[in-house]
Amino acid sequence: MQNFEYCTPTRIIFGKGVVEKLPETMKLFGKRVLMTYGGGSIKRIGLYDKVKELLPDYEIYELSGIEPNPKYNPSVLDGVRICKEKKIDVILAVGGGSVLDCSKAIAGGALYDGETWDLITGKAETTGALPIVDIITMAATGSEYDSGGVISRKETNDKIPYQSMHLFPKVSFIDPTYTFSVPKHQMVSGVADAMNHIWEDYFNLDPNGLADGMMESALRSLIRNGLKAVENPEDYEARAEIFLDATLACNGILAIGEQFSGWPMHGMEHALSAYYDITHGIGLAILTPRWMTHILSEKTEGRIAQYGVNVLGIDSSLPVREQAEKTIEETYKFFESLGIPMHLRDVGIDESRLQEMAHHVAVNEGLDRPGVYVPLTEQDIFEIYKASL
Amino acid sequence: MQNFEYCTPTRIIFGKGVVEKLPETMKLFGKRVLMTYGGGSIKRIGLYDKVKELLPDYEIYELSGIEPNPKYNPSVLDGVRICKEKKIDVILAVGGGSVLDCSKAIAGGALYDGETWDLITGKAETTGALPIVDIITMAATGSEYDSGGVISRKETNDKIPYQSMHLFPKVSFIDPTYTFSVPKHQMVSGVADAMNHIWEDYFNLDPNGLADGMMESALRSLIRNGLKAVENPEDYEARAEIFLDATLACNGILAIGEQFSGWPMHGMEHALSAYYDITHGIGLAILTPRWMTHILSEKTEGRIAQYGVNVLGIDSSLPVREQAEKTIEETYKFFESLGIPMHLRDVGIDESRLQEMAHHVAVNEGLDRPGVYVPLTEQDIFEIYKASL
Repeated sequence: MQNFEYCTPTRIIFGKGVVEKLPETMKLFGKRVLMTYGGGSIKRIGLYDKVKELLPDYEIYELSGIEPNPKYNPSVLDGVRICKEKKIDVILAVGGGSVLDCSKAIAGGALYDGETWDLITGKAETTGALPIVDIITMAATGSEYDSGGVISRKETNDKIPYQSMHLFPKVSFIDPTYTFSVPKHQMVSGVADAMNHIWEDYFNLDPNGLADGMMESALRSLIRNGLKAVENPEDYEARAEIFLDATLACNGILAIGEQFSGWPMHGMEHALSAYYDITHGIGLAILTPRWMTHILSEKTEGRIAQYGVNVLGIDSSLPVREQAEKTIEETYKFFESLGIPMHLRDVGIDESRLQEMAHHVAVNEGLDRPGVYVPLTEQDIFEIYKASL
Repeated sequence: MQNFEYCTPTRIIFGKGVVEKLPETMKLFGKRVLMTYGGGSIKRIGLYDKVKELLPDYEIYELSGIEPNPKYNPSVLDGVRICKEKKIDVILAVGGGSVLDCSKAIAGGALYDGETWDLITGKAETTGALPIVDIITMAATGSEYDSGGVISRKETNDKIPYQSMHLFPKVSFIDPTYTFSVPKHQMVSGVADAMNHIWEDYFNLDPNGLADGMMESALRSLIRNGLKAVENPEDYEARAEIFLDATLACNGILAIGEQFSGWPMHGMEHALSAYYDITHGIGLAILTPRWMTHILSEKTEGRIAQYGVNVLGIDSSLPVREQAEKTIEETYKFFESLGIPMHLRDVGIDESRLQEMAHHVAVNEGLDRPGVYVPLTEQDIFEIYKASL
């Protein structure tokens, strides 16, 4: 087992109606609030008005219009400017993972004198951040329970993960009923994102039984409940379990003690959504079975089969290679059954920039460094993209 | 799914040799240290000298001789007195769960003007505590990653759980190699304690698939690695997994979203070790299969069988009642195979005080309140004790 450090200090407040507890949380952090949100879905579900009603005595400034794949310019820059100008005490992020990721970059930038981009790239160290409270409305990224976010910069086609121990939300409010009205396309994308967070950890070089079983449990739960929620969007138990799965999937607890694997699917997907602005989870779902097929070998077949047997119920009496092949096939079919478009061409990506993206990934994501489950060269990445067309 | 709040802010530093990082942790909390420990095993394994060597510039006061089933008088009272007299900044607990539990009570008492016992019983509220850093040397109680401890008071045969959000250790150092030299009797008792923490949560009225799978994974891991560690006490991978299982077993993460079950086995065991000072984990191992047999009914057989099928590999094609019966039998045999004495008479408990203890538990532990998986009356408790003789 690997030596490791683990700490997730965020308080989760989970369940129906928990937003009522917002005032007792917010009073811990101060009266000057930057409320961040996206395109307005929080207004449609009444959450915007609810927050305003719950915090009548607060001085609330707003940053709205935060994009999916949140952008450094204008969102992060605008947020940092408001925080500095208005001497904000606390950021209240209301929305999905993109809103929260963007808010983390703002929180770091607000306490930094230089260019926020230098914090994101790691050129400068993040030594503090404004406190963040969130009301998370999408089960997907797990940003509500981790210390990172992903920020895109359109000018350079960069999509960069930004992480610091200062970026854990102080408190995350998670009410699964907010996800009842999430459009199906976004919901299944969230399920795929959460599953990929688990796979990225699961396929590593130093597994242990405890973590394997926890990850397999979360994958089973996402599959079972993903199908239920597609069937009946207001199935509370299914929505609650999906949210809990997604919340735990990205902060390391399920993979505790296992080796960091390099997160190859996320590395490859970041280029897709940076170049084409596609939905992150959809990109991941398209790439994953092709990645599994590409890396299938005597070395990896056992691990792929273990996931298949323990999660998908693949028959363990078959030859191992056959178990692994069936596992990949069933994984593909599961995503299809959720209605996910399973080809890059379905989301507007053709062959023209595959080589350029593969090069960008090979240079920037370090997918060939030691420790990656199966190191990937630029050629490997290109071939995986090509198989995904 | 239940509404819930969850937060475990403790930093875990896990692995071989991690104690070397002690100085960079301790410098965060101040120079005046109360070092707490037990009967001297930390001297035998060289850890006492190591700590002194790592912290040459600290003013270290000591409280040694902390008992298994740690006592309010003298240990907690002595510790509180030293903290107040010497203006201690931080408690460094070095040893097993008893040392850490005792240190938590000291940490609370040190910042309280009244009787520490009132904090433990909940008569007074714990509003703060000295910071605690621990180097935990036994895989058992999970005290290194939770906010509670259990304190005994001999005069009244009380053994009371004391819990407060202020009692989470700030940092827990966990080096599995320290457990190589733990005597087998204590090691298997630790495994039984950790398994019971999981069962206490598992047998509840509102399960969910994610948590079920996480708990089943930890139970499988404890069984598999418990047997390995009995076979070869220096099997690092086995020791590491057992420690990780135990660390996660008691703070709610594995059972996240499930209903609180009332912890009946712990409630019944507290009387055994309060009246007879037996080893906590051994008492639990003796009671558990008898409790399962006592509560076996049409209502519970499915859940017991689920644990049996998913953890012990019981044949799921058998009739459910038979699955459940085999599950209980295999659980008993597993503890036997670890060399645990499986009768109360083996640990010096005869029939003479069973009724008195059953009455004490019925009055003090609330095992018949709503929410308990199967509510237990005084008569039930007496019968479970009797079946355990």
